[in-house]
Amino acid sequence: MKVLITGVDGYLGWPLAQYLTNRGHTVGGADNGYRRAWVQEVGSCSAIPVCEMKDRLAAFEKRFCRPMPYWHADLRDFGNILDILHSFRPDAVVHLAECPSAPFSMIDREHALFVQINNLTTTLNLLYAIAKCDRGIHLIKLGTMGEYGTPNIDIPEGFIDIEFHGRQDRLSFPRQAGSWYHWSKVYGSYSIAFAVKLWDLRATDVMQGIVVGSRLSENRSDERFCTRLDFDEAFGTVVNRFCCQAIIGEPLTVYGSGGQTRSFLSLADSVQCLGIALESPAKIGEYRVFNQFREVYSIIDMARKVQSVAAQKGLKVDIKTVSNPRLEQEQHHYNPIHENLRKLGFRPVRSINDEISFILDDLANHANRIRSAPKGFYPTVSWKGDTTATDVK
Amino acid sequence: MKVLITGVDGYLGWPLAQYLTNRGHTVGGADNGYRRAWVQEVGSCSAIPVCEMKDRLAAFEKRFCRPMPYWHADLRDFGNILDILHSFRPDAVVHLAECPSAPFSMIDREHALFVQINNLTTTLNLLYAIAKCDRGIHLIKLGTMGEYGTPNIDIPEGFIDIEFHGRQDRLSFPRQAGSWYHWSKVYGSYSIAFAVKLWDLRATDVMQGIVVGSRLSENRSDERFCTRLDFDEAFGTVVNRFCCQAIIGEPLTVYGSGGQTRSFLSLADSVQCLGIALESPAKIGEYRVFNQFREVYSIIDMARKVQSVAAQKGLKVDIKTVSNPRLEQEQHHYNPIHENLRKLGFRPVRSINDEISFILDDLANHANRIRSAPKGFYPTVSWKGDTTATDVK
Repeated sequence: MKVLITGVDGYLGWPLAQYLTNRGHTVGGADNGYRRAWVQEVGSCSAIPVCEMKDRLAAFEKRFCRPMPYWHADLRDFGNILDILHSFRPDAVVHLAECPSAPFSMIDREHALFVQINNLTTTLNLLYAIAKCDRGIHLIKLGTMGEYGTPNIDIPEGFIDIEFHGRQDRLSFPRQAGSWYHWSKVYGSYSIAFAVKLWDLRATDVMQGIVVGSRLSENRSDERFCTRLDFDEAFGTVVNRFCCQAIIGEPLTVYGSGGQTRSFLSLADSVQCLGIALESPAKIGEYRVFNQFREVYSIIDMARKVQSVAAQKGLKVDIKTVSNPRLEQEQHHYNPIHENLRKLGFRPVRSINDEISFILDDLANHANRIRSAPKGFYPTVSWKGDTTATDVK
Repeated sequence: MKVLITGVDGYLGWPLAQYLTNRGHTVGGADNGYRRAWVQEVGSCSAIPVCEMKDRLAAFEKRFCRPMPYWHADLRDFGNILDILHSFRPDAVVHLAECPSAPFSMIDREHALFVQINNLTTTLNLLYAIAKCDRGIHLIKLGTMGEYGTPNIDIPEGFIDIEFHGRQDRLSFPRQAGSWYHWSKVYGSYSIAFAVKLWDLRATDVMQGIVVGSRLSENRSDERFCTRLDFDEAFGTVVNRFCCQAIIGEPLTVYGSGGQTRSFLSLADSVQCLGIALESPAKIGEYRVFNQFREVYSIIDMARKVQSVAAQKGLKVDIKTVSNPRLEQEQHHYNPIHENLRKLGFRPVRSINDEISFILDDLANHANRIRSAPKGFYPTVSWKGDTTATDVK
């Protein structure tokens, strides 16, 4: 199968390209290098060094004995995405070309607008380009479990049967996103569902949990096959960040009581799930939603898990709670359903525990990089911030 | 009360400014003149002549014995909205500064993006500006009943109690918009609900039906107090368009079978409802939703209604069905609830029938304007259009 990965230089894109190529697919990639720029903007860097894209591509070609077609391109420019689809002619597109950070979107108004417009534009462009080029292309779009928020009822996979005044309908499950970024993902989901109706496209919308991991099991000997591992407050997801704190002996910083419960999966499982979605594609005219995760933990339990794996490696780390910069419930019901991928054959291959252990091994040589990053671990972006009632110019 | 109307030069903004001033409020307005430009872009004009904004303002000042503070300003520029809030210091903002056309958003990709980004940006800027200047400002935002689509269950006012797996929560009622424009209004609703949570703002989100009318009952002698009345396929809403067809003896063009059912209200009732929302404001921290309409009709029934009112005036008109350019159900359940405004005192003052009669009177002198508009009544924007599988360059 020919698969285009948009955002191939990102956290998921790079390992996914390797995984799919290993499974015999032909992978092409596009990226504009924004993830690198954003992490730099917030004053941080990847804990694991990330080589230039050209070196990644050279490593890829050497290992897989074929080059990966690659476009350095901004998908907010419609001409770019049209050109790519026209020349590569993919069977499927995995769309990862979005800004993935809630705190980044909450920095201020400019960042809120940037994230929403960026994500809305790349997704809409991609939909129009698919409709124009080849409506048979299967679009796999990365959403997030965060789109659902934390309702007081179980979370179904995308849709729910609602009975009201004696009548019934199956409707989209109401979303309750918790940041401008998360809302941008909700808008992307609606755009895709609408475009599928409009033009008889085919799409899989993946509500993914928080991914944990630094690389696939393959190629552990060559760091160029690692993915980036961010630990700053904006792009460092919680478990990856805890691992970076653990490796330099800093306390793991839990926001608030840590009772916030989230869904998680290992990087190895994430790419497996995306592979399943690709290999069992949505039908023409079908918009389907997968809740993609393996395990559910509270943040405080996850901190304890990292603490315990670190202890096995002789790393003694404390857990410290800091004031919660976010607007979120710290005690709540959380029971998302995740049956669709299991029915298609998903069987987890790597536990979160194992993934944490691998990350800590990968980080062992990079403690100094983490220590010397200009921006530390502590949150500075407050959900309530950026606006005070007094400072109108 | 000091009320800022953003989009004061538009279809609703201009009569609303008069209505609120009549009720003793101090009204300020902002507009960038886009509605005029859009209608010109699609090759049409208002059936009732619209004088320049400066002449509108002069007429306003003469009649109400005070000037209306007015800013010719684009609200996509944050500085503009900050300056306006800072200098006018309103108690409430009625936000009408959005592109209001479904067909306009469906012309092509550029228009889809323009409408979504325009509407998202003005709304987000306004929210940030209110949070920054004065969180007590009551935001009244014009949404549309079209956000809900046509689910197979009754439509509540914004929220629904959902029971699932033995637990219950009250969640946002799932939206099923039918155009990129309608989705932009859904995104606006979510942005406002989120901002209210974030910053303890106060907001009323108005899901309005299709408005019918050309002016308030006051000032029928001076056409400068009329509002614009568009009849092109993009900005001409269905009943106003039917009236323009009737006045020149053209058949009323019904899309498809005409079984599509929608909610309607007169212009006089629309401004009354907005006045009620203003005068009984949302509480601090409250995001409330009103379904704002009076009557429910199918499009074919509405065509017959216009035909019958026209007949009473000696105008004989036919009804003609044309191929439906939209993607919508033509037979469906439709029963939206509308109790919130009634509970606050809304009592309809003008029926749709009366409003149609007034419009036909107002149009009597303008048949030639309608006849000579370069763009006719027939739909040319197809929901399925703009993309064909063959024409990749």
